[in-house]
Amino acid sequence: MIKKIYKAHEWQIIEESFDASVHEMSESIFSIGNGQMGQRANFEEHYSGHSLQGNYIGGVYYPDKTRVGWWKNGYPEYFAKVLNAPSWIGIDITVDGEQLDLAKNKILSFTRTLDMQRGILQRSFSVELLNGTVLTIDTERFISLVRTEMAAIKYSIKPSKKSFIEVSSFVDSNVKNTDANYDEVFWNTLSNEIDDTDGVILAETKKTFFTIATGMSSEIHLDSVNQLLNPISKQKNGYLCHFFPVNVDQSQTITVIKYASVTSSLNHEKGLLVKRCKENLASCRILGYNALKEEHVAAWLSKWDESDIKIEGDVEAQQGIRFNIFQLNQTYSGNDTRLNIGPKGFTGEKYGGSTYWDTEAFCLPFYMSTAHQDVAKNLLLYRYKQLGKAIENAQKLGFADGAALYPMVTMNGEECHNEWEITFEEIHRNGAIAFAIFDYVRYTGDEDYLINYGLEVLIAISRFWKQRITFSEAKKKYVMLGVTGPNEYENNVNNNWYTNKLACWTLQYTYETFAMLKQTSAQKLDKLTQKLSFNENELADWKSIVTNMYFPFNEEFGIILQQEGYMDKEQILVSDIPVNQRPINQHWSWDRILRSCFIKQADVVQGLYCLEDQFDTSTIEKNFAFYEARTVHESSLSPCIHSVVASKIKNIDKAYELYLRTARLDLDDYNHEAREGLHITSMSGSWLAIVKGFAGMRIKSDLLYFDPIIPKQWKSYSFRILFRNHVLQVKVNAMQTEFLNESGTDLTIKLKERFVLVPAHQSVIEIL
Amino acid sequence: MIKKIYKAHEWQIIEESFDASVHEMSESIFSIGNGQMGQRANFEEHYSGHSLQGNYIGGVYYPDKTRVGWWKNGYPEYFAKVLNAPSWIGIDITVDGEQLDLAKNKILSFTRTLDMQRGILQRSFSVELLNGTVLTIDTERFISLVRTEMAAIKYSIKPSKKSFIEVSSFVDSNVKNTDANYDEVFWNTLSNEIDDTDGVILAETKKTFFTIATGMSSEIHLDSVNQLLNPISKQKNGYLCHFFPVNVDQSQTITVIKYASVTSSLNHEKGLLVKRCKENLASCRILGYNALKEEHVAAWLSKWDESDIKIEGDVEAQQGIRFNIFQLNQTYSGNDTRLNIGPKGFTGEKYGGSTYWDTEAFCLPFYMSTAHQDVAKNLLLYRYKQLGKAIENAQKLGFADGAALYPMVTMNGEECHNEWEITFEEIHRNGAIAFAIFDYVRYTGDEDYLINYGLEVLIAISRFWKQRITFSEAKKKYVMLGVTGPNEYENNVNNNWYTNKLACWTLQYTYETFAMLKQTSAQKLDKLTQKLSFNENELADWKSIVTNMYFPFNEEFGIILQQEGYMDKEQILVSDIPVNQRPINQHWSWDRILRSCFIKQADVVQGLYCLEDQFDTSTIEKNFAFYEARTVHESSLSPCIHSVVASKIKNIDKAYELYLRTARLDLDDYNHEAREGLHITSMSGSWLAIVKGFAGMRIKSDLLYFDPIIPKQWKSYSFRILFRNHVLQVKVNAMQTEFLNESGTDLTIKLKERFVLVPAHQSVIEIL
Repeated sequence: MIKKIYKAHEWQIIEESFDASVHEMSESIFSIGNGQMGQRANFEEHYSGHSLQGNYIGGVYYPDKTRVGWWKNGYPEYFAKVLNAPSWIGIDITVDGEQLDLAKNKILSFTRTLDMQRGILQRSFSVELLNGTVLTIDTERFISLVRTEMAAIKYSIKPSKKSFIEVSSFVDSNVKNTDANYDEVFWNTLSNEIDDTDGVILAETKKTFFTIATGMSSEIHLDSVNQLLNPISKQKNGYLCHFFPVNVDQSQTITVIKYASVTSSLNHEKGLLVKRCKENLASCRILGYNALKEEHVAAWLSKWDESDIKIEGDVEAQQGIRFNIFQLNQTYSGNDTRLNIGPKGFTGEKYGGSTYWDTEAFCLPFYMSTAHQDVAKNLLLYRYKQLGKAIENAQKLGFADGAALYPMVTMNGEECHNEWEITFEEIHRNGAIAFAIFDYVRYTGDEDYLINYGLEVLIAISRFWKQRITFSEAKKKYVMLGVTGPNEYENNVNNNWYTNKLACWTLQYTYETFAMLKQTSAQKLDKLTQKLSFNENELADWKSIVTNMYFPFNEEFGIILQQEGYMDKEQILVSDIPVNQRPINQHWSWDRILRSCFIKQADVVQGLYCLEDQFDTSTIEKNFAFYEARTVHESSLSPCIHSVVASKIKNIDKAYELYLRTARLDLDDYNHEAREGLHITSMSGSWLAIVKGFAGMRIKSDLLYFDPIIPKQWKSYSFRILFRNHVLQVKVNAMQTEFLNESGTDLTIKLKERFVLVPAHQSVIEIL
Repeated sequence: MIKKIYKAHEWQIIEESFDASVHEMSESIFSIGNGQMGQRANFEEHYSGHSLQGNYIGGVYYPDKTRVGWWKNGYPEYFAKVLNAPSWIGIDITVDGEQLDLAKNKILSFTRTLDMQRGILQRSFSVELLNGTVLTIDTERFISLVRTEMAAIKYSIKPSKKSFIEVSSFVDSNVKNTDANYDEVFWNTLSNEIDDTDGVILAETKKTFFTIATGMSSEIHLDSVNQLLNPISKQKNGYLCHFFPVNVDQSQTITVIKYASVTSSLNHEKGLLVKRCKENLASCRILGYNALKEEHVAAWLSKWDESDIKIEGDVEAQQGIRFNIFQLNQTYSGNDTRLNIGPKGFTGEKYGGSTYWDTEAFCLPFYMSTAHQDVAKNLLLYRYKQLGKAIENAQKLGFADGAALYPMVTMNGEECHNEWEITFEEIHRNGAIAFAIFDYVRYTGDEDYLINYGLEVLIAISRFWKQRITFSEAKKKYVMLGVTGPNEYENNVNNNWYTNKLACWTLQYTYETFAMLKQTSAQKLDKLTQKLSFNENELADWKSIVTNMYFPFNEEFGIILQQEGYMDKEQILVSDIPVNQRPINQHWSWDRILRSCFIKQADVVQGLYCLEDQFDTSTIEKNFAFYEARTVHESSLSPCIHSVVASKIKNIDKAYELYLRTARLDLDDYNHEAREGLHITSMSGSWLAIVKGFAGMRIKSDLLYFDPIIPKQWKSYSFRILFRNHVLQVKVNAMQTEFLNESGTDLTIKLKERFVLVPAHQSVIEIL
């Protein structure tokens, strides 16, 4: 069923032949980036076949108009489109008048490699031209992890015969978005500057006025001869080119070295962008290609030291998790609080916006355990800073008195998606944002965060739940009507159990936190309540909701009910759907999907995952069995959560199946959509499936806790986590678990029911 | 609360002063048309203030792209936009260099009149120019009801001083839609031709390639002098002008006579459009303005003979119903089966498309009773001809085996609206289309229609209901999940009572019709069942659904429940909404509206209206009281139905209040949106409120039935109806009802419980 396109390898993604039909998918898979910018693996040279051109800069977007005919009050004003930015990769090649174009040339060999360990994208291929000349070409490209405004390309061409080769190395601001409605152009080119040394285009986004300088510096070398000749400069509007016409003898190699720099008005004064860009290019030239590459590779090796997961005995599983960790680290580095983690990172246009609930519900734990505590804190502060906008967002919908509804999709705190069933109704995101505060404090012990930032957000969200929940005279219970749960294959349902649960959880956590802070930080709390005009009667309202909330339950099956009315649907199982009708979202109408019992992604199971301590094992087992059989996992965010819960109930085969599904979702293209871009945010789910799933890592009473299991396919797996000034390495095999405390102080952890002391700089082996 | 803008008058709409803030509303109110084309009452002369320019041609539309980011399988491919067409009204005036512009000139007097009896739009006004000259201007304009491709304007100017007047009479294809997303232009101008006699622009719609010739012929007269001088012809792309520079003495009057003709590729070969247009203009010139006008006026007088309703003692009520009848007759004449009745007719851009369920559920009875039977039949045949498209539409959603889902909005049978909650879910429209067949046959007795056309549609719709209805194991009942009822302030609800009811009604009517035709038309039926691969087992399935369908009911209040879960909503009454928050759709977010208990339009009450014989009076009373208190009537289609039902239960004050609300909806701008265009389809609801409401007209066992009441504000009301080759005039006052049989054969009717014979050409008076 799954067609394997890429060779299994522990550290690399390898495509061993060229297949135009999967090229767009490969453009996604081989994407590179450095947290500030990134791009799809488009070819440097001209390619006339199908390609999704994509080059993206963090934080740069365009507000696409949404006020069409059916706009209604409270609908967002715009949809934030991720913008394809001016391209700096172009190196067009002509040999004796024939253009290099893999869509047209005869391809003799082709290998594309993504070296994840070192962060390098490579290609080696040879083509035979119409005149019989065989060209052998080697390329490599990277976006520097160290100097985040810089990138470089090395592009070598070796002809089998004496040839006249014309090389055009260019930057181009005439770029479009594939998803533009009317072939709109989103960039205004402000200036073009080019000379022998470098060329820089300054371009500005329409409406949002982000200004970006995109510069290049091109050199050409013949065998070992440095800079063979100066380029001829060419330019048209928005296109700058260094042109090199070269006569090349048989078996000589010409090599183009191209440095690129992208400077953005997010980081520089607009008037200085071109200057900074040129300075960057000058420093690249001084440093040289090899040194630029070496420091980049060293930075990647050190990233891997922090965040690698090793799996022995299962190359595909190993490749999958490394691919996921690699892409996560390419997408978000955590050192810019204005940026966040877009669902497709820098690998595609789809979904627009930068921030979904994915960040809190899926990504936070990964960054919390593999990066400095400030990275996780920055993710939380991103929301704290946008609290004002979240309150405005709620006001637009008619809520008052400081109630906050965080946006479903945002660039700057404003809601910028346009489907009412999502923006108005998929409000469980508010719960995820509250839960992330709890999760962070539980993990880091940073209780100061609560009084300084967290409680303010919790109160605003609790005020929202209070107003959003109403009392049903018919049921004599509090209810929440008209929501969309995590399962987006339902819309506008009443009493989605997960949303009700997270809302009540928020209310309870907020009043418990309030009570706690009253003991520990009375003065600061006083200040805060004044600032927020907070009346303690609000606490009583919240308590009354928590104690009298309605939660749907089905007596017949003894299960939690996803929402009211779910059992009125025809109860069919995923195993009943013919294989050729999956994924159903590509084969069924939206009407049919909405009315079916099929579940897009973890919903009740998402609640069991978040709040597992509230349920005994048999409840989790019963509900997991019921809902897993009905879940099609057509959201990338689904299989990871089911995998963690399957591990929790020791259903290890299911946990392994779902681990592979999440870790290799894009590599094996389970959902037939990898060509649109990668599922970045769900990649942290693969990490969750191992660390929280197989290893059973939790925080219990301020201690790290483990309950490891291991799939039978694996010899061992190991990972490293940061926890409250400790670095702990954990290695699990079928017989034992080894804990290595890499820090200078002892660490007590809990392994199942027993306490284990792991002394500083020592390892402890525990038999399972 | 209601601000009266227009003077009450039995036959006219009169605006006695100019107020720029209501100008766009007046542009709607004073719209004119002839069933083939129509237009808003834009000024002939330049007007620099706010104006919604609108000139529309029946059947001409543009397929606006709907495949944006959130497009899903089964969503329509396009939204059919009603297109603003090339304009022929323009007459710009400059006097001694100063432009006539009511937004800038000092206005001394202003009267705008719509003479509904004669179908003429008039203005008389005077302005003082900066140089002190006072201009007195009289205009009149009509679109011929007789020659449906022609129209004319008479525009007179009288200066108080000797003046140099420049007149520019023009046609212009540089028109835009106000609702265009990106200032798109929808017309390509193909050719411009102008000479002294006439000027014609040929323009084509983009994508749909409708071609339209828009021509004019302009004459200028000074006092009684015929054609003063030949025009100077001017042209730019898409703009043709007859320019007249004239010296006018004090107290002389110059008069522009402008003939216009619009020919469309819907009715002519494209190559002949310009020729036909010129021929039309030539025939206008030969006929002359007065004769053209006289035949037009005569046609209107005869229309009124057929369809007038007279109300004595209540000028506002009289004006309201005549305004409604006038606009209905301007919108649809019933002699072109390709055309239908758009919700805004020719008065605005909003809603796009031409056909909604409005046609069957609201308009059919009006045309059935006031026009030849073929008009109603043509409305039915419109759907019959689109059955294939309706089956395709259902297939796109996953239905099979000949199931048909008629579109919510259409131009040519394809669904062309884009809100899933409407297109997929507001499927009750299928019921309305089935019910219209029953309604037509009940009224006309045309049972042949059933075997020749009707049953085929009924079977296809029944097949849809069969597949759309599922069995709930939880309820052990058939259910219909995920629908939107007539009340569009709910979306995606389960078991909307109205939809369930109409679905079961359709199934039952279909199998009863089948059984009846088996007796009467066995051979034809055989042919049909073969054509449709119809298996009689299908009948059994339908019966089983009818006998075991779930209908929501609330025991506590003893009422039918609009949908499952409705009583979980906070139960607030319309009377609790502050006046300054109404209409709620202009003050509340869509989120708040969806979650409120407020009902946009008749929903349960719509069912009581359609199927009243199934309910006893106390059931109707109880449900009406409950739902009327919660209904905000923010759909134009709502108050009329509530009015009819209020009359049925003899709640005459409520019926009268709701009659005024529907009949004067636009004149008094109840919903603050008349500037966007008029609510054409609901205008037949005003007719329903009188004829079915106050007069209680029904068809019972092939007889006309009446149960008249009269509002205390009225002295009498009278109307004429066509019924099965009879013309019956009915006049009701508080004491008696008079029936006048204008036809040559006797007619037996039923008045309450008694039979009344009304002999040919005689009248009968019955004391109430």
